[in-house]
Amino acid sequence: MQLIDGKLTSKEVRQEIAAEVEIIKKAGGKIPHLSAILVGHDGGSESYVAGKMKACEEVGFKSSLIRFEDDVTEEVLLNKVQELNEDPDIDGFIVQLPLPKHISEEKVTDSIDPRKDVDGFHPQNLGRMVIGSPAFISATPQGIMELLKRYEIETSGKHCVVIGRSNIVGRPMSILLSQKGYPGDATVTVCHSRTKNLKEICLSADIIVAAIGSPEFLKAEMVKEGAVVIDVGTTRVEAPDTKRGWRLKGDVKFDEVAPKCSYITPVPGGVGPMTITSLILNTLKSAKKEIYK
Amino acid sequence: MQLIDGKLTSKEVRQEIAAEVEIIKKAGGKIPHLSAILVGHDGGSESYVAGKMKACEEVGFKSSLIRFEDDVTEEVLLNKVQELNEDPDIDGFIVQLPLPKHISEEKVTDSIDPRKDVDGFHPQNLGRMVIGSPAFISATPQGIMELLKRYEIETSGKHCVVIGRSNIVGRPMSILLSQKGYPGDATVTVCHSRTKNLKEICLSADIIVAAIGSPEFLKAEMVKEGAVVIDVGTTRVEAPDTKRGWRLKGDVKFDEVAPKCSYITPVPGGVGPMTITSLILNTLKSAKKEIYK
Repeated sequence: MQLIDGKLTSKEVRQEIAAEVEIIKKAGGKIPHLSAILVGHDGGSESYVAGKMKACEEVGFKSSLIRFEDDVTEEVLLNKVQELNEDPDIDGFIVQLPLPKHISEEKVTDSIDPRKDVDGFHPQNLGRMVIGSPAFISATPQGIMELLKRYEIETSGKHCVVIGRSNIVGRPMSILLSQKGYPGDATVTVCHSRTKNLKEICLSADIIVAAIGSPEFLKAEMVKEGAVVIDVGTTRVEAPDTKRGWRLKGDVKFDEVAPKCSYITPVPGGVGPMTITSLILNTLKSAKKEIYK
Repeated sequence: MQLIDGKLTSKEVRQEIAAEVEIIKKAGGKIPHLSAILVGHDGGSESYVAGKMKACEEVGFKSSLIRFEDDVTEEVLLNKVQELNEDPDIDGFIVQLPLPKHISEEKVTDSIDPRKDVDGFHPQNLGRMVIGSPAFISATPQGIMELLKRYEIETSGKHCVVIGRSNIVGRPMSILLSQKGYPGDATVTVCHSRTKNLKEICLSADIIVAAIGSPEFLKAEMVKEGAVVIDVGTTRVEAPDTKRGWRLKGDVKFDEVAPKCSYITPVPGGVGPMTITSLILNTLKSAKKEIYK
């Protein structure tokens, strides 16, 4: 069993990006610039955005944080999005979700210029992903694809079971893994809450992507010997023995599943550390006009 | 075994649309208007477009056909698209594919206003389909969904195997069938040229969508008793005994597969007749602003 070390891979990718930024700098080019809009003071959002800004600093990007209070109107927010769309210095930006209830997340997402949508949430980027055109892929799926690539995990002709059909993980993973090329060309089965015989289906899988958000859902009896298991779950469960009072739990019962696997991602330290790095990678791609010419 | 009669269903849907148009007319509303751009004189394209225009007439739509010669420049074509985008009388329009090689089909498709993209080929509509937002769904997948609905075929929790991952059939079908709601909530496996054990996978399927374009590919030994089989194939094979010299063949070896099925679509007369009807339905939806407000 080999552990897929997302923390290490993330560090490597960031070092590669930092090296590219150095080259751009030396050539007198424009430094990639990621901007983030943060509405309100939700603890989770605060720490995500802080992590993103810190990652920018780490790789030498320019970054900017735009804050609004909870009572900002949709109109003011949309105007700010428009401003960032038009600002030639900004290569990509994100609007941190969730937004307050009086603001339509769909409207805000749709208003972002797809060319700067480094979160990959805009329908135009999802649609381009579907047809295999260059597209900004959202952070988690892209992070997983990067891990598969760097660990040289064979996907062609493999049976891959994706548990979960969410717009941000399960659905894009099922599309990407069944697409032509590498990592891809897998025979993909999409499972979800309505699936019958989930155990049998999982048992036939060479690769399992667990993205249900249900702690320790995937048990050893559902995994065949030698399978690759990607655990996307990150649920906080109470843990009075820790300083924070909680611990991150994946969707996989790691202790019993891991011994059966050829490769497995741990939680924490697997898929998680790759997400912000994917965002940074998308921003670099945007600055280099790799997705949209 | 029950035959899914696409010809009959198509007729019924068109009658319903015609009735709606009558109501709109009587209320003094605007008659739905579908426009088609046809470049060159390809035989297949000519007859497709003629079928679309005829269908408009049949249901009482206004239609218009814009023709260009093969040597039209991309710029002229894009200008025409822009003109149709801005014409308030036109509810939807299509650019008949394929286009001559000197014109980028991607560029042309991308230039169509998604609100008028009744072919459902624009990335924005594909992306909206992915996240389950209202979207124009392309003709063949939408036609199949309509058939499943009208024949009240149970899909929830069923194992559905989609053979083929094309952008216009296999891929959208796999997304739609695994989405929440009806017809959907199926456990979907996407198979393609790289799939191993296709026979075993098909044998476990409650519903098979065959969209590979390989005549009589799906044999009886690949289909379990009681399965629903949707045949999307339409390959012309030589048939000297016919007047035209060819015959349409589906992807399913009908004679041997049909007796095992609970439901099956024939070729011709199954999925085929639904495609133009789907386009007409999309145009009505556009006129009624059901997809985009």
